[in-house]
Amino acid sequence: MLQVAMISTGEEVLHGDIVDTNAAWMSQLFYQHGFKLSNRSTVGDNIEALVAEIQHQTITASVVIVNGGLGPTSDDISGEAAAKVLNSPLVMSQYWLDRMQARYLELGKEMPHSNIKQAMLPEGAQLIDNPVGTACGFFIEVNKSIVIFTPGVPSEFKVMIEHQILPRMKQWHPMVEASECSRLFTFGLSESGIQDKLQQIRLPHGFEIGYRSSLPFIEVKLFGPANHDGRFPVLERMYHLLGDNVVSVDESMLPNVGALLSEFSLNLTVAEQATGGWLTSWLQEDEQIRTNMKQGWILSSQVDQQMAGQDPLAAALALAAATRERTQTAIGLSSGPMLQGKVAVALSTPYGEWGQLISLKRNYSYNEMRSIVSTLMLDMLRRCLEKKPMFGHYESLNRESEIYVPQSALQ
Amino acid sequence: MLQVAMISTGEEVLHGDIVDTNAAWMSQLFYQHGFKLSNRSTVGDNIEALVAEIQHQTITASVVIVNGGLGPTSDDISGEAAAKVLNSPLVMSQYWLDRMQARYLELGKEMPHSNIKQAMLPEGAQLIDNPVGTACGFFIEVNKSIVIFTPGVPSEFKVMIEHQILPRMKQWHPMVEASECSRLFTFGLSESGIQDKLQQIRLPHGFEIGYRSSLPFIEVKLFGPANHDGRFPVLERMYHLLGDNVVSVDESMLPNVGALLSEFSLNLTVAEQATGGWLTSWLQEDEQIRTNMKQGWILSSQVDQQMAGQDPLAAALALAAATRERTQTAIGLSSGPMLQGKVAVALSTPYGEWGQLISLKRNYSYNEMRSIVSTLMLDMLRRCLEKKPMFGHYESLNRESEIYVPQSALQ
Repeated sequence: MLQVAMISTGEEVLHGDIVDTNAAWMSQLFYQHGFKLSNRSTVGDNIEALVAEIQHQTITASVVIVNGGLGPTSDDISGEAAAKVLNSPLVMSQYWLDRMQARYLELGKEMPHSNIKQAMLPEGAQLIDNPVGTACGFFIEVNKSIVIFTPGVPSEFKVMIEHQILPRMKQWHPMVEASECSRLFTFGLSESGIQDKLQQIRLPHGFEIGYRSSLPFIEVKLFGPANHDGRFPVLERMYHLLGDNVVSVDESMLPNVGALLSEFSLNLTVAEQATGGWLTSWLQEDEQIRTNMKQGWILSSQVDQQMAGQDPLAAALALAAATRERTQTAIGLSSGPMLQGKVAVALSTPYGEWGQLISLKRNYSYNEMRSIVSTLMLDMLRRCLEKKPMFGHYESLNRESEIYVPQSALQ
Repeated sequence: MLQVAMISTGEEVLHGDIVDTNAAWMSQLFYQHGFKLSNRSTVGDNIEALVAEIQHQTITASVVIVNGGLGPTSDDISGEAAAKVLNSPLVMSQYWLDRMQARYLELGKEMPHSNIKQAMLPEGAQLIDNPVGTACGFFIEVNKSIVIFTPGVPSEFKVMIEHQILPRMKQWHPMVEASECSRLFTFGLSESGIQDKLQQIRLPHGFEIGYRSSLPFIEVKLFGPANHDGRFPVLERMYHLLGDNVVSVDESMLPNVGALLSEFSLNLTVAEQATGGWLTSWLQEDEQIRTNMKQGWILSSQVDQQMAGQDPLAAALALAAATRERTQTAIGLSSGPMLQGKVAVALSTPYGEWGQLISLKRNYSYNEMRSIVSTLMLDMLRRCLEKKPMFGHYESLNRESEIYVPQSALQ
């Protein structure tokens, strides 16, 4: 099997000041295209350590991606390390120098002298274009392996990997089979609960099911060869087995709800107490929802005496209805205050009103609580728009009570 | 110098499904205690690869931390790899088996048979206690290095590192000096701008200044030996040189503003257009602000015709004032709509009103824009409470115009 390794460089990555998102991103992308990583490592801004690591990785790996250390400052040492590995001098790339100077000219600035360093490549190295920065990439051959040097700035790294390096990898290794990943996003099921449900599925050869928990969702992934006839039937079966806990397919929940709102030309207003603006701020991220959202009210989650005596479920329902009426929107969505670990959420629509009083099964941080309750509120809206059962099964929540007011009962 | 390396294991980490937070967390903690990491690597659930990686790391490192692969399932292979490295058999630890059985007994459950695997340690290994899980740690000696095996579950890993492993490391290497880190959080300066300002400081021996960019803040860190007389004078000088762009010391900006609001017994209401609830939701994270915040209004950021003709700065000022009056709070804070790349923000207080119309110097994503503009709004409030100049220097923003209405001009 083709062995691919990655070496990340930089003191900040090594000492944990920066979480290495480049590595996670590239590993996932490569995996999807059939290039499974076999090893990933991190070294600091130390030339001997980097040289040793490159030599070590090239013993087993056919392709080694080195990330970072191509900047203009003295602690950027990847070019020099490459030269040392090859036992070759650094030579000036006139082509890249011209490119950098042209870029600075466009910005109406003079190129700092320190940038010249970025045009110095080991003799014999092949340049890789960087259309969005001054750090060009390059690759060299060591011990029959290809070692590819890439810039650390995530935006530059991603463009180079996607447009320059991945196409070359496919050219070099045409037999590697691209894989494809389909995704179902679920809310309300646990990972073991999902596993139990999906156990009965017999997967075609080369397929596997993976899980990724990104609270409060669990993403269920179907990996397998691209363009395979067996994919769709499996996906359909998974969708069926997970039932109405599937909140969206191949995209997250938010754009799914946004598209439904636009399709039915419905606008909405939100009133939040326990969730303190979390839902509103989240909803605004989707452009279609933003267009259809009239207002968000964030009320103090402290409860005055008058309110303390009220039925929390009735209060949340009244809040959703009042919100809807006052702003003349089709939909009102509300969360009441958190009282003794319980919170009521409600949805008011022209088709009826729904409310539920829930408690959480575990201790969560404030932000986790907000994220879960906000998702529950959005899930009520999603279920209404998709005409699914309104009171879903949620493993992490206890439903204390629920209420449904049909359209006919509303004036 | 003492060389410390870390090996993370697991397919999900290697393929980027999980971001390796254990590695970043441990690297930071070790750094603070004087144990700088020299190398970090990741391998999948492949026994040959893990054995080779352990052998490779023990050539140069005195201490190697292996993380993950101690679970009960068949893809957990770290114990077996350790045995292979030592060329020793796995033997049962009766002590750990009893501990696991006692733990299950407490929970009123029977121990699954598969857990027995977690009591199988390489002959000669020293057990490390895990008070919060069934995966015990252990360490072995290889090529004169100590190789320490730790569980992958973050909560278990952290307890073991802090309470079992770090104390042992200090015992083994008593000459390693603990370091301390002081932090200044800045808003509005670039990293190179900060570097230029701080260049003139002469640091005492063993001290260094580091930077961490966590948009929109840049955290400036002073590393150095713990309990050193030289620390405070340097910190004071840094604070002075960075001026009113320092938003907080040793804590983030939010708790600083929360404490000031509480100290002066001031409550507030926020009205947001361009920032779409970002500020409100963020403010709610701080308990002191939550107590003092009366309402948040998120208005549609779409502009109707009537508004389009208005002066945006006057409109934002009117919104802040109206918000404050309607909710009878001391402070009103507002953002207007984003129009042609410009947004107005305003602060209304009993001491006067301030507004500024700004544009961003680069293209940002919607969430980045919201985070920057929200921070600017909070920074106006911070400057007012700290009696600092109200219109600060912000490198990433252009201030198009500004307005100040003194107390005397308000009715």
